[in-house]
Amino acid sequence: MSTPRAASTTGKASPRDRLLDAGAHLFYRDGVSIGVEALCRAAGVSKRSMYQLFGSKDEVLAASLERRLPGYEARLVVPDPRDAAAPRERILHVFERLAQAAAEPGYRGCPYLAALVELKDPGHEASRVAQGAKERLGEWFRAQAEHGGAADPVRLARQLMPVFDGAAARSGARLDTLSDGLAAATAATLLDAAGVR
Amino acid sequence: MSTPRAASTTGKASPRDRLLDAGAHLFYRDGVSIGVEALCRAAGVSKRSMYQLFGSKDEVLAASLERRLPGYEARLVVPDPRDAAAPRERILHVFERLAQAAAEPGYRGCPYLAALVELKDPGHEASRVAQGAKERLGEWFRAQAEHGGAADPVRLARQLMPVFDGAAARSGARLDTLSDGLAAATAATLLDAAGVR
Repeated sequence: MSTPRAASTTGKASPRDRLLDAGAHLFYRDGVSIGVEALCRAAGVSKRSMYQLFGSKDEVLAASLERRLPGYEARLVVPDPRDAAAPRERILHVFERLAQAAAEPGYRGCPYLAALVELKDPGHEASRVAQGAKERLGEWFRAQAEHGGAADPVRLARQLMPVFDGAAARSGARLDTLSDGLAAATAATLLDAAGVR
Repeated sequence: MSTPRAASTTGKASPRDRLLDAGAHLFYRDGVSIGVEALCRAAGVSKRSMYQLFGSKDEVLAASLERRLPGYEARLVVPDPRDAAAPRERILHVFERLAQAAAEPGYRGCPYLAALVELKDPGHEASRVAQGAKERLGEWFRAQAEHGGAADPVRLARQLMPVFDGAAARSGARLDTLSDGLAAATAATLLDAAGVR
């Protein structure tokens, strides 16, 4: 969700961390097809050093997506003043956080869905990381839905995920804005229909 | 929606058509970052000929997306035995057609959303074509919603589009299947809530 910045060039980060930070920034901004040269230049790391640390650019991509995950999840489901809220509010809060993130300059949608769309290869090591990120959010929705008394928690989670991913992708592509609460309102309608009140 | 095939090599198609057919096939299967060499090889056209016909690979991409649009739309909203159906059925039919397309081998989601996600540049000439395709579907939803008595047709269309795009992208990325009518059921819930019966 957040827009990662390139690693600081003050030099305290290790070459590995600089590669992962620069990778997270460039893959998100420009796509997974950016070249090794551009990646190493942004990280201030030689190609030789990169290949000593990682087997390939694909490995940097997978590792950078994995490294972002805790921050991504914390941003979506971080406790707010409604920490003790009911599952319904917790689910809606995710869609509100999405709208907040989407309003930031440089927002380009969910980095995990983007990686999957760009790689077009479910077996790619970075696709595996992205699938895991998506499964974790879906499972979180399912658990909240179950806790909230949904008639069919699995199905409700499967309905919420496309709303999340579609809203994120469309907002990232500047096809629509989420600033008026559109995604949360859609989620609320689905929660109503599933009996999560 | 459909999975375009590379141009027949029997040689009757013009170099221009062969480039557009091969482009539609390769951009969809492999992504917009495929090289000029691969494109020309698949089309059986020299690079020199390509640059005589198109200013750039980006222009081939934009033209190939534009050329696919009538077929894409016909596939989604083509008359079925319920041709005289109410707006609700016409809208739901789009989501049923999406599920049918998603079940085909080689399905990778909506080519227009994919181009936007991959290009990451709303001002790119191919992004303009993709935005137009998305706006046309959204406008079609809006018109149907209005015809069907929706309380707020614009808002309903804005809610249906992420469901469409999210379901298409997730199915194309093999994150979920639409074969059990998930997307149509989600759309039906939104139609219910908007008063389109």
